[in-house]
Amino acid sequence: MRAGFHADLDRVNATLVEMADGATDAMRTASRSLLSADSDLAQQVIDGDEAIDVRYRTVEEQLSELLARQSPVAGDLRLVVAALHAAGDLERMGDLAVHVARTAQRRAPDSALVPEVRSIVTAMSECTCRIGEKVTRVLRTIDATVAAELENDDDAIDTLERELFSVLLEPGWPHGVAPAIDAAQLGRWYERFADHSVNAGRRVIYFVTGT
Amino acid sequence: MRAGFHADLDRVNATLVEMADGATDAMRTASRSLLSADSDLAQQVIDGDEAIDVRYRTVEEQLSELLARQSPVAGDLRLVVAALHAAGDLERMGDLAVHVARTAQRRAPDSALVPEVRSIVTAMSECTCRIGEKVTRVLRTIDATVAAELENDDDAIDTLERELFSVLLEPGWPHGVAPAIDAAQLGRWYERFADHSVNAGRRVIYFVTGT
Repeated sequence: MRAGFHADLDRVNATLVEMADGATDAMRTASRSLLSADSDLAQQVIDGDEAIDVRYRTVEEQLSELLARQSPVAGDLRLVVAALHAAGDLERMGDLAVHVARTAQRRAPDSALVPEVRSIVTAMSECTCRIGEKVTRVLRTIDATVAAELENDDDAIDTLERELFSVLLEPGWPHGVAPAIDAAQLGRWYERFADHSVNAGRRVIYFVTGT
Repeated sequence: MRAGFHADLDRVNATLVEMADGATDAMRTASRSLLSADSDLAQQVIDGDEAIDVRYRTVEEQLSELLARQSPVAGDLRLVVAALHAAGDLERMGDLAVHVARTAQRRAPDSALVPEVRSIVTAMSECTCRIGEKVTRVLRTIDATVAAELENDDDAIDTLERELFSVLLEPGWPHGVAPAIDAAQLGRWYERFADHSVNAGRRVIYFVTGT
């Protein structure tokens, strides 16, 4: 019975890994579309989001089946709740990649990024995608050491977001409101993506190890 | 056995009602703090968020107990998942109220709202709080007719958010970047609050009626 339970957990975890992979890939592509003002690339991200949403429903079904089959005890339920939340985080990460892609697309063939913010947004996108990759690795290997690193990476994103705002709010900002709002929202979405990544990593570690 | 199941559902639902009440109240107070540039009022919202988070964990525990007690069938699990998501929506609504309060507080004793956006943001806050109250009523009475109205209310918020952006992006905007970013973020938070409200309402209807 408990062997069956663990096989069920592994199945859920495999779907979570696919979601993390998909969301990170989406954010990487969205960032490329943003940096190169490539509307077609942005469209790929928008079209691809459905695949992440489908996997989200798969996780819900796998967890429902697990619970129906296992007559779980109270501790098990906490694991199920953690897995559901992790799936929710990963689904939301896919949505945030779509937000970035839509901003790229709305301004294309112009760039949504004015020169003053380009290097910081590039750094945010790289840092965010690195966190996404690390979370995918954490989910795949259940390596608590790598999971612990994520908190520091998340701090780096917060620092970059503050830097971005200080550029936007400099008195001599020459570009008016629209590019500033774009940049502020992009910064927020990267920060949220990183935050959900770290949460997902933490929850999956809990889901698989119970600690 | 099934009678016990329904009593358990009612218990969860009562906690969800408390969360909806708390989140709406928080957003109402946050909006007052924003409109009156009242830092103390904003602090009340920030301090009060913990109570919503506590209830969120209560919902999780109540659902765990429900599942452990009832050896649920697959259909029951969908209800539990819906309740968990609703609780997640409501918890997030509390966070969004805190975001509004923090913006009010950061600018106080000055107002975070420049005159050009004041009436639209006021309308957004009123519409959002009305949606929150309606959701609380839906959760309390499980009235599917009221739940259906929520979709229209949510459209009204989207329209107001578009209006807000068109004001911010007018060529002659005289206030520079900071108040524009504040207003854009505030608009986004009200829109997200309304969106989560509608989702929570829909999920609780499903949770309680199974449809």
